[in-house]
Amino acid sequence: MKKNKIKVQHNSVAIIGWHEGTAGQIHSWLEKLGTYHIACFVNPMDTPVIVDPANIQRDVSQFSYPNAESFKDKALINSFNWIETLKAMKINRVLITLENAQQRFQYINQARDAGMELINAIHPTALIMEDAILYENVILHARVYVGYRAEVFSGVIVNTGTQLDHHNVIQECATIDPGVVCAGNVTIARFAKVHTGATIKNRIRIGENSIIGAGTVVIKDVPENKMVVGVPGRIIKDL
Amino acid sequence: MKKNKIKVQHNSVAIIGWHEGTAGQIHSWLEKLGTYHIACFVNPMDTPVIVDPANIQRDVSQFSYPNAESFKDKALINSFNWIETLKAMKINRVLITLENAQQRFQYINQARDAGMELINAIHPTALIMEDAILYENVILHARVYVGYRAEVFSGVIVNTGTQLDHHNVIQECATIDPGVVCAGNVTIARFAKVHTGATIKNRIRIGENSIIGAGTVVIKDVPENKMVVGVPGRIIKDL
Amino acid sequence: MKKNKIKVQHNSVAIIGWHEGTAGQIHSWLEKLGTYHIACFVNPMDTPVIVDPANIQRDVSQFSYPNAESFKDKALINSFNWIETLKAMKINRVLITLENAQQRFQYINQARDAGMELINAIHPTALIMEDAILYENVILHARVYVGYRAEVFSGVIVNTGTQLDHHNVIQECATIDPGVVCAGNVTIARFAKVHTGATIKNRIRIGENSIIGAGTVVIKDVPENKMVVGVPGRIIKDL
Repeated sequence: MKKNKIKVQHNSVAIIGWHEGTAGQIHSWLEKLGTYHIACFVNPMDTPVIVDPANIQRDVSQFSYPNAESFKDKALINSFNWIETLKAMKINRVLITLENAQQRFQYINQARDAGMELINAIHPTALIMEDAILYENVILHARVYVGYRAEVFSGVIVNTGTQLDHHNVIQECATIDPGVVCAGNVTIARFAKVHTGATIKNRIRIGENSIIGAGTVVIKDVPENKMVVGVPGRIIKDL
Repeated sequence: MKKNKIKVQHNSVAIIGWHEGTAGQIHSWLEKLGTYHIACFVNPMDTPVIVDPANIQRDVSQFSYPNAESFKDKALINSFNWIETLKAMKINRVLITLENAQQRFQYINQARDAGMELINAIHPTALIMEDAILYENVILHARVYVGYRAEVFSGVIVNTGTQLDHHNVIQECATIDPGVVCAGNVTIARFAKVHTGATIKNRIRIGENSIIGAGTVVIKDVPENKMVVGVPGRIIKDL
Repeated sequence: MKKNKIKVQHNSVAIIGWHEGTAGQIHSWLEKLGTYHIACFVNPMDTPVIVDPANIQRDVSQFSYPNAESFKDKALINSFNWIETLKAMKINRVLITLENAQQRFQYINQARDAGMELINAIHPTALIMEDAILYENVILHARVYVGYRAEVFSGVIVNTGTQLDHHNVIQECATIDPGVVCAGNVTIARFAKVHTGATIKNRIRIGENSIIGAGTVVIKDVPENKMVVGVPGRIIKDL
C-alpha cells in the first residue's frame, strides 16, 4: 500500500469525510478553483475504513474507495481526535462533508471552538443573487441557485441544480438533494432533509429534523420531526 | 421620512409595483445591466401603501417594505393617474410588475395607448434560443429557458429556472412560477397561472385563466377557467 | 420546388431525421458551433415525406416542415440505402436523431459497420463534470448536466435541462425528456424512455425498454419492459 506523504501549504485544507459521492465529488472540482490545496481526507475514527470493492457491484466504471491510508491519491487520516491531529500537522482549515447532519453540526462546532477556519465549497456554476448571505462550511454543488436576500447557514449542503429562491432561509446543517425547487420566502429549519426533486411552495416553513421525501410537493407548513411524502405532501411518520 | 428626489435621465424607467419579491427583486439586478436607470417605483393608487414591518414576522433578515414615499431608496409615487404623473415628469418608459394578471394587462394596454415604451426585464442568465420571439413587458427571471421558436407574449412573467421548451407559446399576461418544466409545443393561454414546480407534457394546451397548482403534472389539455392539481393533473374547480 | 445543391466540405455531416423538434432544433445551434457543416438531412426511406402544413393547426408562428427534397433550406435525401447514398457523395459523418430508440440503435450500428464517423451534438450550455464519459452519437440539449464520473452511451438523447448526477450510467439509446432529475448512482438501461419532469431517486436502476411517465417519482428499481407512472411510481403495464 502506497504511503501518501502530506505536504502542507499556506492554503491547505483537510476534507472531513471520504465518501465518493460527497468528499470525492467535491475534490474533483474544489482544488481546481485555485483557492485551496487539499492536503488530506479525514475519517474521524481511529479504525481505518474497510471497503472491499470486489464485493460491491456497480454499473459505473470509475468509483473511488478509501483504503487504510488513502482516498483519491490523497492521504486519508483515521483519527477520532482529528482536530488535534490536524493542528499538529499545521492544518488549520477544514471542510466537513459528512452526510449525517447531527455529526456535521457537532464537528463544525468542535472545529470552530478549536479556532479552525471552516471553508465554503461553492461550485463556480452556482448562481448567488444580490444580498444573499452565506455562512461557513456551506457546500453548494454545481448549478445551485441562491436567490435575492436568501440566507444559507453553516453546515448546509445544497446539491446539484437545486433552486433556493428569494428570501429563503436554510438553517444550520439542513441537507437539500438535487433538483429541489423552493419558491420565495421558504424556510428550512436546521437538520431538515429535503430529498431529490421535491417542490416547496412559497412561504412554507419546514420544521427542524423533518424529512421531505423525493418528489414531494409541500403546500403547507411542516412541523418539526415529521416525515412528509406525496403530492400534496402528507405527514406519514413521526421522527 | 426622507424625501427621494427623482432624477430623470435619458434611459429612465418607472417600475409599476412595489412588492419586494417582484419589483424589489427585479430592481436588484435590472439597473446593474446598464441599459436602464430606475427613476422610481409606482403604487398605482392615490393612497400610500401602509405597511408596518413591526407587525410582520419573517425568518429572513433583509426585506424591503415601502413607506409613504419610497421603496428601496427610490421614490415611490402614489398615483391612480400614474401615466399622466410620469409623463409630466418626462418619464416615458415603464415596466409593469403587478402580480394580478388582469391588472397587468389593463395597465400595459393603458401605457401602450398613451404612447409609453414598455421595456423587457431579461436576467442575463436567461437562455433564449434561436428564433424565439419575445414581445414587450416580458419579465424573465434568472436561468429561465426560452426554447427554439418559442413565443412569449406581452405581460408574461416567467420565474426562476423555468423551462419553456421549443415551440412553446405563452400568451398575454400568463404567469409562470419557479422551476416549471414545459416540454415542446406547449401553449399557455393568456391570464393562465402555472405554479411552482409544475410539469407540462409536450403538445399540451392550458386554457385562458386556468390555474395549475404547484407540482401538478399536466398530461392532457386544460380548458379555460379551471383549476387543476395533482399527478396526473385533475380539474378540481371551475374558476 | 427549389432544388438544394449539396456542397460537401471537409467537416460535413448528414443529419439522419427531419423532424422540427429534434433534427430541426439541433440544426438551429449545431452548425453555429463551427465544428461541423450540415450538408443535408436524410429521410431513411425511398418515398419522400408528405406533409401538408395547411392541414396542421399550430399556435406557434414558426415551424419547419420537410418537402419532397428539402428541410430548413438544406437538401433532404430520401433513401433507404442512405449509407451508400452518402458515401457516394463523400459524406462519411452522420448524426442519427430518430426518436425511435430501436431504429436509432439499428442505424448507429449500420453506420458504424460501414466505417462512418458518428458525431456528438453537445449544446455549449451543457455542463459535463470531471471524469464523465460520453460515447458516440450522444445528443445533449441545452443546459443538460452530466455529473462526476457519469457515463452516457451511444445513441442516448438527453433533453433540455435534464440532470444526470454523479455516477449515472445511461445505456445505449435511452431517451430522456426535458427537466428530468436523476440523483447519484442511477442507471438507465438501454432503450428506456424517461418522460418530462420525472425524478429518479439515488441508486435506482431503470430496466431495458421501460418507460417512466411524465412527472413520475421513481423510488424503487424498475424491471425491464414496464411502464411506470405516479408518485411514487407504480408499474401500470407490461410492455
